[in-house]
Amino acid sequence: MDARTGLPVVGMVGAGQLARMTHQAAIALGQSVRMLAETADDGAALVAADVVIGDYRLLDDLRAFAVGCDVVTFDHEHVPNDHIRALAAAGVVIHPGAEALRFAQDKEAMRVRMGELGIAGPAWASLAGDAAQLLEGFTAEQGWPVVLKAVRGGYDGRGVWLVHSLEEAQPVLDSGTPLLVEQAVPIARELAAVVARSPFGQGAAWPVVETVQQDGICVEVLAPAPDLDDETAETIEALALRIAAELGVVGVLAVELFETVDGDILVNELAMRPHNSGHWSIEGARTSQFEQHLRAVLDYPLGSTEPTAPVVVMANLLGGAPDVTPAGIDERVHHAMARWPGVKIHLYGKAFRPGRKVGHVTALGDDLVAVRAQARAAADYLANGGPES
Amino acid sequence: MDARTGLPVVGMVGAGQLARMTHQAAIALGQSVRMLAETADDGAALVAADVVIGDYRLLDDLRAFAVGCDVVTFDHEHVPNDHIRALAAAGVVIHPGAEALRFAQDKEAMRVRMGELGIAGPAWASLAGDAAQLLEGFTAEQGWPVVLKAVRGGYDGRGVWLVHSLEEAQPVLDSGTPLLVEQAVPIARELAAVVARSPFGQGAAWPVVETVQQDGICVEVLAPAPDLDDETAETIEALALRIAAELGVVGVLAVELFETVDGDILVNELAMRPHNSGHWSIEGARTSQFEQHLRAVLDYPLGSTEPTAPVVVMANLLGGAPDVTPAGIDERVHHAMARWPGVKIHLYGKAFRPGRKVGHVTALGDDLVAVRAQARAAADYLANGGPES
Repeated sequence: MDARTGLPVVGMVGAGQLARMTHQAAIALGQSVRMLAETADDGAALVAADVVIGDYRLLDDLRAFAVGCDVVTFDHEHVPNDHIRALAAAGVVIHPGAEALRFAQDKEAMRVRMGELGIAGPAWASLAGDAAQLLEGFTAEQGWPVVLKAVRGGYDGRGVWLVHSLEEAQPVLDSGTPLLVEQAVPIARELAAVVARSPFGQGAAWPVVETVQQDGICVEVLAPAPDLDDETAETIEALALRIAAELGVVGVLAVELFETVDGDILVNELAMRPHNSGHWSIEGARTSQFEQHLRAVLDYPLGSTEPTAPVVVMANLLGGAPDVTPAGIDERVHHAMARWPGVKIHLYGKAFRPGRKVGHVTALGDDLVAVRAQARAAADYLANGGPES
Repeated sequence: MDARTGLPVVGMVGAGQLARMTHQAAIALGQSVRMLAETADDGAALVAADVVIGDYRLLDDLRAFAVGCDVVTFDHEHVPNDHIRALAAAGVVIHPGAEALRFAQDKEAMRVRMGELGIAGPAWASLAGDAAQLLEGFTAEQGWPVVLKAVRGGYDGRGVWLVHSLEEAQPVLDSGTPLLVEQAVPIARELAAVVARSPFGQGAAWPVVETVQQDGICVEVLAPAPDLDDETAETIEALALRIAAELGVVGVLAVELFETVDGDILVNELAMRPHNSGHWSIEGARTSQFEQHLRAVLDYPLGSTEPTAPVVVMANLLGGAPDVTPAGIDERVHHAMARWPGVKIHLYGKAFRPGRKVGHVTALGDDLVAVRAQARAAADYLANGGPES
């Protein structure tokens, strides 16, 4: 507890944009998120009062960071699971806990567990052992192409390879990275179900969204997912809440899903933290995923997830042209504000690099085509100076 | 400019709740508000990265603070006007400027200027000179009771005295405080028009609101003002935008108004900063007054002021029962969140003292009676542990 305010101290390991936006939500709740940052220039470290510089891979740094925190949580899933267990054993309250987080850190453990729970996913196999032989066995049944995935550490398209032949797969197999293989599912589109769960067991779901991907990176989120019938939407929300409960997740859980061309819903990935597919909720829902994550890890009652507009579209700013100097972004903000006075701009305090998520915009309204066009144009302009320039 | 982000640095003199909420808005815009705080425990200082401790009454402290700020603005109007002039003369960009701010600092100067502009207000007179004699002259025409006001420095009911006789007025007259006297207007209700204006001259108005007062302190804001006909609302918005333009205000301007029992609209007070009557806009309008104040002082294009719900009610948390320990507030937050999952809670990091504004809640919906009851109940519970407890 912060003795000055009488309110709890949430420690967040990691100080990227998720911590940055969580801090915004915490301020309203009378709190100030304590962050374990890698450098003082991390996006969240630039804006928060209580920043500790340290290495999340070092147990000693984690131990020191946790002192005085009412609860420790994460803005990424890269903290070694053993360290989380060690902290918990020492009495630190950590949400999500090591047992749950394992299924967001280890894709093989996740696939095994989903199988045990009877939850549909792509056909898959472990490649632990003679990878080439195991891959040949898998493709003999499933055919090519297939998706190779690093068991640990991948995100935003990293650690995922679509391969069409053993020859193409070979360099990945040779890298020594622990891998699994998945069927390359014929995808109609990708969806995401974001929910939150408290230690008490309360759950809350936002509307299921469509996540539009490019080169394995989410570029847009459409909330709610267009043309998703109510029954399917409810089934998916119930599925995500069930996963949260079965895995003992505390905090926000994002379930990334495939909708196949046959209309099947398959679980793709899990993330146990605020997630890109929930950024729209800052303006688009009564309670944002960032506030909800805080509520959940603090065992506060969860807030209403009611949408604030019929259509909400979030578009990521992916760093583009390498000539975006810092001065250039301010100029772009001016123009974007003039052109789209109702679009909400979010910048993460990160340097623009090609393909890097440096911010997002949110547009809200009644008409999907118009709202999406607005978000798309504003994001393109802010990230690339075009095509509206 | 912040070399790390390429984005401007706004310096805010004062680190209370207005600076705290401005910082939240700044984070989304990629910025981090620099604050001149009185102590490290000021509400905004608890949550921001870039905090300077200093005395806003000392020109040297202001000068040092302004170094590296692209623009300096205020979370209160207590900075000596001469200091603002001195800073501007030294090349510091300050919004609002000294010329404009004078009319929010000096109630007599404001009344004179409103008179010159032909803008209606209560009958008034200066009491500079033989105050008792001047007061007798005023009341001979206007009758008793009258309102005595300190020319400078009053807020939240301080510096304002309703007096019914010369005898009752005498202690105030004797205090030596420079005073003016105003007719005690027969008020039907109080309204507020909050607008923003940029240096370029762009103006933007939020819907006119009703401000519900108790003992001279705002307790609730109803947005939009109930039963205000469109024509009157538009006239009031135009009036506020005209005042902003005539006085050369840059930033947010709040015009506090009386609606008299005869239906006249009279200007009561001016504030040139985000204002309590605009807190509802955080969730209730597409662009909050805090984001808009930043946009305005940075000469960014202004954002849409479109409401996000038909009815928005803000209720202040006024510190109540003196037994509210810090531990007590966390417990109250738990209960309030359980009881009102859609109500948005804002806590300012301030100690609870009777009558002190320590936070606010915002409720949104379609039905004024229901939304207002929800906001009222949540605020009463959080502030006093009742009547819902």
